[in-house]
Amino acid sequence: MEYRKIKDEDDHVVASDIESVKGKSHTVASSNIAMPTLGVGSGERVNWKRKGVVTCALTILTSSQAILIVWSKRAGKYEYSVTTANFLVETLKCALSFLALTRIWKNEGVTDDNRLSTTYEEVKVFPIPAALYLFKNLLQYYIFAYVDAPGYQILKNLNIISTGVLYRIILKKKLSEIQWAGFILLCCGCTTAQLNSNSDRVLQTSLPGWIMAIVMALLSGFAGVYTEAIIKKRPSRNINVQNFWLYVFGMAFNAIAIVIQDFDAVANKGFFHGYSFITVLMILNHALSGIAVSMVMKYADNIVKVYSTSVAMLLTAVVSVFLFNFHLSLAFFLGSTVVSVSVYLHSAGKLR
Amino acid sequence: MEYRKIKDEDDHVVASDIESVKGKSHTVASSNIAMPTLGVGSGERVNWKRKGVVTCALTILTSSQAILIVWSKRAGKYEYSVTTANFLVETLKCALSFLALTRIWKNEGVTDDNRLSTTYEEVKVFPIPAALYLFKNLLQYYIFAYVDAPGYQILKNLNIISTGVLYRIILKKKLSEIQWAGFILLCCGCTTAQLNSNSDRVLQTSLPGWIMAIVMALLSGFAGVYTEAIIKKRPSRNINVQNFWLYVFGMAFNAIAIVIQDFDAVANKGFFHGYSFITVLMILNHALSGIAVSMVMKYADNIVKVYSTSVAMLLTAVVSVFLFNFHLSLAFFLGSTVVSVSVYLHSAGKLR
Repeated sequence: MEYRKIKDEDDHVVASDIESVKGKSHTVASSNIAMPTLGVGSGERVNWKRKGVVTCALTILTSSQAILIVWSKRAGKYEYSVTTANFLVETLKCALSFLALTRIWKNEGVTDDNRLSTTYEEVKVFPIPAALYLFKNLLQYYIFAYVDAPGYQILKNLNIISTGVLYRIILKKKLSEIQWAGFILLCCGCTTAQLNSNSDRVLQTSLPGWIMAIVMALLSGFAGVYTEAIIKKRPSRNINVQNFWLYVFGMAFNAIAIVIQDFDAVANKGFFHGYSFITVLMILNHALSGIAVSMVMKYADNIVKVYSTSVAMLLTAVVSVFLFNFHLSLAFFLGSTVVSVSVYLHSAGKLR
Repeated sequence: MEYRKIKDEDDHVVASDIESVKGKSHTVASSNIAMPTLGVGSGERVNWKRKGVVTCALTILTSSQAILIVWSKRAGKYEYSVTTANFLVETLKCALSFLALTRIWKNEGVTDDNRLSTTYEEVKVFPIPAALYLFKNLLQYYIFAYVDAPGYQILKNLNIISTGVLYRIILKKKLSEIQWAGFILLCCGCTTAQLNSNSDRVLQTSLPGWIMAIVMALLSGFAGVYTEAIIKKRPSRNINVQNFWLYVFGMAFNAIAIVIQDFDAVANKGFFHGYSFITVLMILNHALSGIAVSMVMKYADNIVKVYSTSVAMLLTAVVSVFLFNFHLSLAFFLGSTVVSVSVYLHSAGKLR
């Protein structure tokens, strides 16, 4: 069930340089902003197209991520420190954001929306998602006293529900009843797809284990929803600037994680101990997935992100059949069908 | 997974004496008939109330049926011939229909709608459901060459899909897209709830096994839908007359089944060999469930029947926890949640 690892990707704050790839394109306001320069029809179309492109990119990057993880596991155990890899992912994304900005400055000149300098008022909330992820990742080390790794993979599906609930409470956005039904089904379908003969053990999890799992799901969901809130608060602000600052704090908090969790290994064996070609590919992939998550947050929302990474999980399993002779279970077929129906309900159940 | 046995109940054509219990009440036309003597509001209310009562009755009777089966299995293996029990169920239902009619004749007098005499035109289609069930039950003996019993229980969920498809094609009734989504989920949820560590074996079923399973699902679905068509064709005709004739043919075809399948056992050991108190209770319960199915067919439809027996399956499992120390699996919780959402979608997705 290695393909579930993709959900780990949720745990990284993300950046983007797609803006720079589009070269001269101006920042189009996100869907909840009026666009006086474009007709509503063509503006809507641009929004939908961009939303589709970033969602597909996230799905493909996330599923290839999981395949890289399976591949790296086959090549041998992880020998590098995961915290150093996370730090490098944040650094790479920060560098890509800056690179994107230099291109934009060259093409469009420096404006109020794309200048790097910021105010305390703007930047004060940026450390919060990174701090939440750090806290969640630290908790992760303790939860294994209560559940085994496959059990933890199953409990992580609580993230889906926590994201939905916090999305409703914090961002105050409404889902229709049909969409809520779809969201519950997404959680059930993902869990069903991962069922194996040992899954029932998760029901024996003790109360502290459940509480930790729920707290971790809330932290993860809160970090995602909070990131969306930060990015959407200033819709005209260039996404690369927003990401640059998010990643500066991402780097800082991941540096703290290195000190807390891997100080001895790094001090004795060096920062890059155990790195291989696959490790480098994985860091690159994580950084690019980060770009895609960021774009989904800016132009779509957390709900789309959750659907996208869930569908990626199913894609990964199907691709693994061909790549690794992975066997699909009946539970996987049932879960995939439930997830597919759930995707349909999310779109069919749109309010108004 | 004995609780799945309840689905076997689908395999019996059914009768009813509920009409007589209501004593003096006149036959109220089913929902697709205008009711000039009642206001639309109160007519609708009567219909809804009756629909609710018969659906609840079916759910409760079906789940207690499955519990009786578990109980009888605990008390020892079946030693009686199942075909003789089926014959007695048909006979009992036929007798109950006749008893109900005699009461109605006494209270209301004989009318065109409740007279027992029939025409070739009316009665010619009545043997068809019983013949379909006989054919399906005979096939059941051969499918076990291709799948084991738990695998067969899983394949029987194809009945849900076949009922939906045939309901659409034969009765030409429309379900909304949301209701179709709910129906697919019902099938997935019921199957998920039954998953155990050996379920994956069903995926290895050979092509002839799959074909037989699909043919059996179609026969079962067709028999159900055809029964509804027969009963609804003459909405004002008393349900007890319709059932009387259905059961006369049910008795005849079950007599054929005794000859084909259990002739030696009955000839050597007698018709009632192996009967116990529980066997009698089960026959009584089957007959009463039959009454409820018949009522659901008359006042609701096959879709409601499928939902009702599916929910009964879940109820049975929950009751079995208390009665038999049955352990509920994670798969059961996931499947039950999917079924619950499916029930919600069926009602939320109503056309117009």
